Amino acid sequence: MTESGDLATGVRRFRSQQRVRFGDVDHAGIVYYPRILHYCHLAYEDWLIEECMGLHELIGIRRYGTPVVSLASSFHAPMAHGDVIQVEVSVERIGTRSFVLGYRVISTALETVCARVEVTHASVDLESFQSVPIPADLRAMFEEPPASAALPVDPEGSEA
Amino acid sequence: MTESGDLATGVRRFRSQQRVRFGDVDHAGIVYYPRILHYCHLAYEDWLIEECMGLHELIGIRRYGTPVVSLASSFHAPMAHGDVIQVEVSVERIGTRSFVLGYRVISTALETVCARVEVTHASVDLESFQSVPIPADLRAMFEEPPASAALPVDPEGSEA
Amino acid sequence: MTESGDLATGVRRFRSQQRVRFGDVDHAGIVYYPRILHYCHLAYEDWLIEECMGLHELIGIRRYGTPVVSLASSFHAPMAHGDVIQVEVSVERIGTRSFVLGYRVISTALETVCARVEVTHASVDLESFQSVPIPADLRAMFEEPPASAALPVDPEGSEA
Amino acid sequence: MTESGDLATGVRRFRSQQRVRFGDVDHAGIVYYPRILHYCHLAYEDWLIEECMGLHELIGIRRYGTPVVSLASSFHAPMAHGDVIQVEVSVERIGTRSFVLGYRVISTALETVCARVEVTHASVDLESFQSVPIPADLRAMFEEPPASAALPVDPEGSEA
Repeated sequence: MTESGDLATGVRRFRSQQRVRFGDVDHAGIVYYPRILHYCHLAYEDWLIEECMGLHELIGIRRYGTPVVSLASSFHAPMAHGDVIQVEVSVERIGTRSFVLGYRVISTALETVCARVEVTHASVDLESFQSVPIPADLRAMFEEPPASAALPVDPEGSEA
Repeated sequence: MTESGDLATGVRRFRSQQRVRFGDVDHAGIVYYPRILHYCHLAYEDWLIEECMGLHELIGIRRYGTPVVSLASSFHAPMAHGDVIQVEVSVERIGTRSFVLGYRVISTALETVCARVEVTHASVDLESFQSVPIPADLRAMFEEPPASAALPVDPEGSEA
Repeated sequence: MTESGDLATGVRRFRSQQRVRFGDVDHAGIVYYPRILHYCHLAYEDWLIEECMGLHELIGIRRYGTPVVSLASSFHAPMAHGDVIQVEVSVERIGTRSFVLGYRVISTALETVCARVEVTHASVDLESFQSVPIPADLRAMFEEPPASAALPVDPEGSEA
Repeated sequence: MTESGDLATGVRRFRSQQRVRFGDVDHAGIVYYPRILHYCHLAYEDWLIEECMGLHELIGIRRYGTPVVSLASSFHAPMAHGDVIQVEVSVERIGTRSFVLGYRVISTALETVCARVEVTHASVDLESFQSVPIPADLRAMFEEPPASAALPVDPEGSEA
């Protein structure tokens, strides 16, 4: 699995700043790994609110949802309570009825990529749980060229 | 708040054995306290499945729910990853449209009460979110005399 | 339990804006109640970072912690996915080796107090898990007169 | 990613019965996907307790841990509150300093594989966070031929 190659090709589109919390760690003293996927979902929720429509409105008003069909992740460095992290989202692929988002979870202090995650979402009508085409406004959000000013700092200068 | 007095008067009615998990602890190395309330809710869910009807059926089929309106808890001893615990439920009060459950979270190894929790639930119709009388089968479960054989061990012999 | 009276006497000292997330709800469609206590803890963590020292530093560097010894809460209105909430913290009591924080969880859209929580913390040395006096910088944070400009809006005008 | 092929080759070694809980679902009414990885970790913890040594002892006594370095999962059918699930573990690969576990999360009622997960763990000394050879007792657990009687039911007869 060389998802790091894949993720590098995605253009970064949104960044959510978060913090590792007191209750997020496990007995080994580092972030319990299912919570890293939670951080990525929070970034996706933040992006929808900022540039499309809140996920609660997509679900509550339109009865539209984006359940996860698969994911792949790699964890490169542990995160600990108190760490400030940037969760960057990129669009890896947009199909008709599914899309793939890539995430990099970056430690602000260490300027290190702690985790890479790639998540494939289906586009579904929640009444029938059948797949439907990605709605126009969501597709527009995914296809919008990134605001270059928005993401000036790159902790992985060596990738350039 | 002297909930320990209150709880002592309740007759223990159900016991759920659980285990503190790898991801349940916080940075101080003990159970993150909101999870102790989660353990109590798991015991309530287990009791409903065993002696009434699963909460998923009460909600999904009858559109009936029991939202929490208040709670009080005291924490007496920390719990750590790997601890086996008994979560005992007692019925403290049964009203027409609300009820109070008491919990004792007991460390099996130490024979110590680690936490006491008292939770007041409303009885509501989930369509209207209006209060309704407690349904007959749920009331019967609360009023049933406890099977004395079911709870033979008392880690707090000194309370007798 | 009339904690609402108690809480009204506390001077509000810090406010943390949060949002109810996609995974925070339960099968009844409202916030799973242990997560409301999690929201309060996040506000406490935010306050420490802003005005004292991060809890991760208190724990990691000083080996000092503030485990919860008791709590009381009342829930007045359900919260749902997408709701923006303000979690206000007040100092209810400061002892030598313990302190009581009060929380109001307020729906920004409805201008309603959804939950009130009162949490008693012990002041402990984490090496020995023995109680110790509250450190001077933490005590100063608790005793500092509130910046009046910081909390101008009161969603409960009718309480005055 | 064709993890289903990979997973099919693993011999099933342990099965943990669990239940989807009231607070495990999201606003779309199905299990919030990070919790599916939590279910897999619970099965891993159960297996260690049953056939080796509790993870809390590996960590607390030996200062040995198995942090996750990568994972891949696919989700085939949604799970809902109340569902009883079997989480089956298989050993996919055993290296010197890492190992790969495969999981199938099976709905008991539907006899359907809802999720497949493959998790790669490192073998580390928690004092130094450096990789170390897998200890003999853990390796023995992984290499032990499965008790054929233990896993008699196969909900995926078509795989045979």
